[in-house]
Amino acid sequence: MTEAVLSHPHFISLEGGEGAGKTSAIAAVRELLAARGHEVALTREPGGTPLAERIRELLLNPQDETLEPETELLLMFAARAQHVRQIIRPALQRGAFVVSDRFTDSSYAYQGAGRGLDPAWIEALERRAVGIRPGLTLLLDLDVREGRARTSGRDLWPDRIESEQDDFFERVRVGFRQRAAAEPQRFRLIDASRSPAEVGAAVTRALTDWLEQLP
Amino acid sequence: MTEAVLSHPHFISLEGGEGAGKTSAIAAVRELLAARGHEVALTREPGGTPLAERIRELLLNPQDETLEPETELLLMFAARAQHVRQIIRPALQRGAFVVSDRFTDSSYAYQGAGRGLDPAWIEALERRAVGIRPGLTLLLDLDVREGRARTSGRDLWPDRIESEQDDFFERVRVGFRQRAAAEPQRFRLIDASRSPAEVGAAVTRALTDWLEQLP
Repeated sequence: MTEAVLSHPHFISLEGGEGAGKTSAIAAVRELLAARGHEVALTREPGGTPLAERIRELLLNPQDETLEPETELLLMFAARAQHVRQIIRPALQRGAFVVSDRFTDSSYAYQGAGRGLDPAWIEALERRAVGIRPGLTLLLDLDVREGRARTSGRDLWPDRIESEQDDFFERVRVGFRQRAAAEPQRFRLIDASRSPAEVGAAVTRALTDWLEQLP
Repeated sequence: MTEAVLSHPHFISLEGGEGAGKTSAIAAVRELLAARGHEVALTREPGGTPLAERIRELLLNPQDETLEPETELLLMFAARAQHVRQIIRPALQRGAFVVSDRFTDSSYAYQGAGRGLDPAWIEALERRAVGIRPGLTLLLDLDVREGRARTSGRDLWPDRIESEQDDFFERVRVGFRQRAAAEPQRFRLIDASRSPAEVGAAVTRALTDWLEQLP
């Protein structure tokens, strides 16, 4: 498996656990890029195309059947293979910025660190089925209990993954932080425990710095 | 990727193209096994569990979106990962025979030989996500045009894969035959151009021979 995974400077992902403020951060990213005159393609995972959204529905609401970890991982990458080819690459090729709410790092964190699947397998899937990674990844890092406290009012009907226990989300958080530590040139770790205004300012600053050093 | 793919003597798959008579052959296999007092778990791919059947629906009726070859392959293996863990292994463990209408060989033939995806990738998925192969595979081999002529009356609404052109099915047929040639101890190649009675007799003979040499 020799395929390379290339990063693209106009591809930005946002990662982080529940309640960390990804939605507000994405709005801030979009606003800044649009203010500078860029076309912004906003997308999300799992999902991003009608078919990938149908896969998302299988992942989050598998009804009465236990979803095996291997099945979960393969469905995530099936949706991602479609998302990359139908949405992300065409948008980058026409010169747009792509801003994705989650991308492959979430598979390393949730299916790898969280479920215990071998990261070597996830790497193989990334090389074969994805072949691209963001130029910039903003990781909103937050204590698991704090995140749960923030979302406790809004998730009346938590989905399958939201229904996991804290120890799962602790592993996911560690997984995200390890990825950020391993790729400091791509990741910006943002302390999401601060006020929304402070987090928004940190997101804007990280993005501004990054845009300024682009060739 | 060091996982081994082990064959199980009570696991039987039937493979072949459209119109080759798989349905009648499966009925003959079931009848013979049941007559000898075995529990028979009959299943099919893609599918076999409620979730895997929902994946099948995505595969065969993706609606208005082009299904990328990589997405197709990963959806097939997502369904198979679920099928193996929820249905096939539990049935084998309780002592049943499992008879599956298609299994991993179909991915090598359709997504590998048919769509041109790298068989090394399919092998990696087989090791990681499946880990088991049939002890006996009956391949019903038939000329592509003959198969199409046989099904032309019954497929008023052909699905996405049935709608492919003959050159695709020619590659699939070659792919199946190459697999059979590479694993003669597992495969029985059955000439499906003969009458239904002759094909049924050949299936019954192949299965009888194979059962007799089981330890």
